[in-house]
Amino acid sequence: MAALFRGSRNVLLRWTKHVDLAFVSSRSMASKTPVGFIGLGNMGTPMAKNLLKNGYPIIATDVFPESRKELQDTGAQVVDSPADVAEKADRIITMLPSSPNVIEVYTGPNGILKKVKKGTLLIDSSTIDPAVSREMALAAEKMGAVFMDAPVSGGVGAASLAKLTFMVGGVEEEYQAAQELLTCMGANVVYCGQVGTGQAAKICNNMLLAIGMIGTAETMNLGIRLGLDPKLLAKILNMSSGRCWSSDTYNPVPGVMEGVPSANNYQGGFGTTLMAKDLGLAQNTATNTKTPIPLGSLAHQIFRVMCSRGYANKDFSSVFQFLREEEVAGW
Amino acid sequence: MAALFRGSRNVLLRWTKHVDLAFVSSRSMASKTPVGFIGLGNMGTPMAKNLLKNGYPIIATDVFPESRKELQDTGAQVVDSPADVAEKADRIITMLPSSPNVIEVYTGPNGILKKVKKGTLLIDSSTIDPAVSREMALAAEKMGAVFMDAPVSGGVGAASLAKLTFMVGGVEEEYQAAQELLTCMGANVVYCGQVGTGQAAKICNNMLLAIGMIGTAETMNLGIRLGLDPKLLAKILNMSSGRCWSSDTYNPVPGVMEGVPSANNYQGGFGTTLMAKDLGLAQNTATNTKTPIPLGSLAHQIFRVMCSRGYANKDFSSVFQFLREEEVAGW
Amino acid sequence: MAALFRGSRNVLLRWTKHVDLAFVSSRSMASKTPVGFIGLGNMGTPMAKNLLKNGYPIIATDVFPESRKELQDTGAQVVDSPADVAEKADRIITMLPSSPNVIEVYTGPNGILKKVKKGTLLIDSSTIDPAVSREMALAAEKMGAVFMDAPVSGGVGAASLAKLTFMVGGVEEEYQAAQELLTCMGANVVYCGQVGTGQAAKICNNMLLAIGMIGTAETMNLGIRLGLDPKLLAKILNMSSGRCWSSDTYNPVPGVMEGVPSANNYQGGFGTTLMAKDLGLAQNTATNTKTPIPLGSLAHQIFRVMCSRGYANKDFSSVFQFLREEEVAGW
Amino acid sequence: MAALFRGSRNVLLRWTKHVDLAFVSSRSMASKTPVGFIGLGNMGTPMAKNLLKNGYPIIATDVFPESRKELQDTGAQVVDSPADVAEKADRIITMLPSSPNVIEVYTGPNGILKKVKKGTLLIDSSTIDPAVSREMALAAEKMGAVFMDAPVSGGVGAASLAKLTFMVGGVEEEYQAAQELLTCMGANVVYCGQVGTGQAAKICNNMLLAIGMIGTAETMNLGIRLGLDPKLLAKILNMSSGRCWSSDTYNPVPGVMEGVPSANNYQGGFGTTLMAKDLGLAQNTATNTKTPIPLGSLAHQIFRVMCSRGYANKDFSSVFQFLREEEVAGW
Repeated sequence: MAALFRGSRNVLLRWTKHVDLAFVSSRSMASKTPVGFIGLGNMGTPMAKNLLKNGYPIIATDVFPESRKELQDTGAQVVDSPADVAEKADRIITMLPSSPNVIEVYTGPNGILKKVKKGTLLIDSSTIDPAVSREMALAAEKMGAVFMDAPVSGGVGAASLAKLTFMVGGVEEEYQAAQELLTCMGANVVYCGQVGTGQAAKICNNMLLAIGMIGTAETMNLGIRLGLDPKLLAKILNMSSGRCWSSDTYNPVPGVMEGVPSANNYQGGFGTTLMAKDLGLAQNTATNTKTPIPLGSLAHQIFRVMCSRGYANKDFSSVFQFLREEEVAGW
Repeated sequence: MAALFRGSRNVLLRWTKHVDLAFVSSRSMASKTPVGFIGLGNMGTPMAKNLLKNGYPIIATDVFPESRKELQDTGAQVVDSPADVAEKADRIITMLPSSPNVIEVYTGPNGILKKVKKGTLLIDSSTIDPAVSREMALAAEKMGAVFMDAPVSGGVGAASLAKLTFMVGGVEEEYQAAQELLTCMGANVVYCGQVGTGQAAKICNNMLLAIGMIGTAETMNLGIRLGLDPKLLAKILNMSSGRCWSSDTYNPVPGVMEGVPSANNYQGGFGTTLMAKDLGLAQNTATNTKTPIPLGSLAHQIFRVMCSRGYANKDFSSVFQFLREEEVAGW
Repeated sequence: MAALFRGSRNVLLRWTKHVDLAFVSSRSMASKTPVGFIGLGNMGTPMAKNLLKNGYPIIATDVFPESRKELQDTGAQVVDSPADVAEKADRIITMLPSSPNVIEVYTGPNGILKKVKKGTLLIDSSTIDPAVSREMALAAEKMGAVFMDAPVSGGVGAASLAKLTFMVGGVEEEYQAAQELLTCMGANVVYCGQVGTGQAAKICNNMLLAIGMIGTAETMNLGIRLGLDPKLLAKILNMSSGRCWSSDTYNPVPGVMEGVPSANNYQGGFGTTLMAKDLGLAQNTATNTKTPIPLGSLAHQIFRVMCSRGYANKDFSSVFQFLREEEVAGW
Repeated sequence: MAALFRGSRNVLLRWTKHVDLAFVSSRSMASKTPVGFIGLGNMGTPMAKNLLKNGYPIIATDVFPESRKELQDTGAQVVDSPADVAEKADRIITMLPSSPNVIEVYTGPNGILKKVKKGTLLIDSSTIDPAVSREMALAAEKMGAVFMDAPVSGGVGAASLAKLTFMVGGVEEEYQAAQELLTCMGANVVYCGQVGTGQAAKICNNMLLAIGMIGTAETMNLGIRLGLDPKLLAKILNMSSGRCWSSDTYNPVPGVMEGVPSANNYQGGFGTTLMAKDLGLAQNTATNTKTPIPLGSLAHQIFRVMCSRGYANKDFSSVFQFLREEEVAGW
């Protein structure tokens, strides 16, 4: 649901262009047995449709009847609960809003693990705490099933176009089997290591992104107040050691770049609330592993304050606007 | 003296390669009249020598007799004071450690302005507070002279090889005259705007660099503790929105890249003390212009604490080492 | 286990002296039926002994045989598991290191709730996440039992002398019953509200304490560097609006006060690790409730860094030492 | 001009009550020769009037004619410039808005030092950078005069009632002479040490005050969100180690205390802009002395952001309102 970047189309695909060939998967279309899909929201529905397009029969469910209906109309078989999905499919993908939903869908009274078959491959594409991913993997293992975490980068547009990037954690032997399905929904699939490392990679990227964005906003604001032209300052930074994605690809200052949220009153893009949520995951993870993240932590606090000051639904680059001095100082 | 990056040779020149042609100056070798040079330290001496190599007679001075002697041996004429330099040259370059030195050399009892000729071009390559640059410009203007700020990026090596980058602030009409001299000492000369904007550009870049470096160190440390391989994590960040100069060109984690200070026990590079000094300038400038810089300010504090905990002379990327958990937590 | 302050004796009791009469409980010694006690560590053992002294038969358990043995020698009956305790006592106190232990002791396979009797009063004195307290309360309620959180302030010394302070959360109707037992172990019992508010009160206090301590350390250090005598500065702060507990009761600067850890090389007192743990709880709680805590969060990071730089077992006021400039700055 | 606290009347005097007798000066009314007074703003005018009331003839000046007129009407002799004041008085008090004004009034073309008599006592009550105080002291010394810094605590009300507190820095031999005048304008006079330490004491106090206030606001907000009643939480903090002036005397949460700005929509009190100014002084001082102040620095940034988000003229305790979540979080 949350995404590295749910982005303005023209910058969205930059990741793709830089990707190593080593990461591009070769599809091994062994068999087209049914695939389970749980969580039919804005992201899950187009993802499931892409599996259908690639010839995989889908057994799906969701808490909302309308969502179930929409997918049924596209040819999927709809059942009542995660347990029912587990009874009919031995490869299941989940795409849910947050940790508690994942826990419920896997270990709840009608959860997947109630009826999961031995050897089933479970792929969770939700963005959650890696510790929960590891818990789910242990619970699955007890039932003889295999759990992998595979959070995505890219928003609704990328989901529709099968251009998502998946960061995958789990036992390496099962990676190829996961890749077979994930490449139907995404342009890049990156293997990150043991269970939870997919989440870890996503959390890490988004934390550094948040720091770079606030840092860019502060720097541009300071430079402007010191008399520098914003476009010239961006140019100087981008050819120097201050360069980062937020300065050269997604500049937060209106007028510096086109086709980014700052050029459109911070509409679209990746909402401040979503960034605050991902930073909350980074914060919890860091706290629980006793890792100091002074700037990450302060970035979290800044986006959290912004959420309560009217910036919740603006793109996270609106931090430039938040920090900017707007009044004439009184003395 | 302080530099954007006084660096390991192999990364030092990356800026150069990306520079717009628009920024590369065309030299107009009107005349080779004497040029004054004040401040013959590690940076000033090789800079003055490069002017000599380009055929400019040099009238120089410094507070240290040995420094004067060294330049005299290369063919420069040495005089006793800045005032004496001003009497004999109508183009003068200054390269000094900090604001108080600049104030003394320009406005002190034996300062340049005591004997400066009308129309003299004064170029200050020190890294100082832009407010001081503006003060000096005003003082110079009163005497009928022109002052420009032109701080450098690149360290001693770049100074010797005439590969420095100059960020120049001052009246545009005089820029070409400044460029004539600066291109003898540097590979890039960037015009930034009115007096003080050269300093502003440098301060801004170094602040964003500091934020990006600490952010990268935190992120890499968190990822490693979450089970990610550091090289793989760097690769993922660098093809994604977390990418920045500190992650892709100067990674602070030993073993991720070669030819950077982290590969050499944080020897060489850009010292923590120097970064702390530049962040002090950013901090003062932001305070005086009432500009909020939450991350820049915290970055300043972190490097300041590092200076008192034994990291003063290590490269600033040693913040990775500073943040890393080294002990087994006791409980 | 962790405590507001496990302190040097002479400052420990200051809380006591200020306490409202309204908070001092009147004991109602209805009956001396057996009381269960689970968790016989440094804190739990003297607490259980104080109940014994007050004439309550104790049914106890712990994971460590030696701890069980010690209490048995004092006259307690020792059993094998929390479930066994629940079978024999309808008032049970738990004193455990952290959230996972509490979850295990209450809801694990041999946990209290496996055999708890209807109407049993469960009092948890561990310092944990209030969300876990609420979960335990719900689980207890399903079994017809009542759960209250009652974390303590005061260390091992206060536990031995029955001078602890308890902050209690839970249904008000049961508060008197809890008070009957808690007053045997503490000097103050404060009712805070619904389940979890005892934890909340403790977390809040310790967060503000941490901020005040770092703030005092920064301020004293700055003042000293500006030429102020530390004792005089403390005196000025303490008669003015900068006053706080860390400045007037527990000053972190050696030589300013006697009988505090700073007067004893930061030995004793409340360890940096324990403060970092409590700030981790504050951080998680704030993240989960989407509450911005910029200073609390930075305080957490600072103590976390200190833990990895050799300050883990020193008193948390050693932050003064951590921040202090020790080297002669080079330029 | 800026003050430790320009406060609601009923809390303003708490400092007074706690003051050591040691600090209360004994007046030595040697002689009532004329006293110079420069800077007749909101603070300076009532201060000068109190000197008049005590029988001292006043020679005054100010840049604004109306201010001069007002004092003239009360019986003071008004002259044209600081230099003119220096010609006629050998004890001079200055009360100016900020460092540049002080520099101008002392060392400008019509400044005090142009015509100061040997042995003149110069007392500056402005709140400025201690480094500037030291500079002025040196400049005065060259002319055979003595300079002391004596910034005040207490606002316009305290100035009118002669209830200010003065923190005095300068040579000890002259302290008694300064005290003679200062006790006519204030209730407390505290000797802090060498020149600049008066400023240092004030800056230190206000920095710790700022940290304590934001900390209290964060803590109260977190506690409320965790279900605690604000009054109860304040009571618990105030009898425990979280206690500070901001929690027990000036609580920022509406409804907790009466007679403080939080009870009056944050009107009156000590404005956020003034606090941001004082924190700017703390920041500059810390930067220039290479002293790490992580929390002080973040506090500065927070009040700076508040200034640009509409809180400039509210009391600084409005940080509680700034941090508070006001919207229903969307997910």
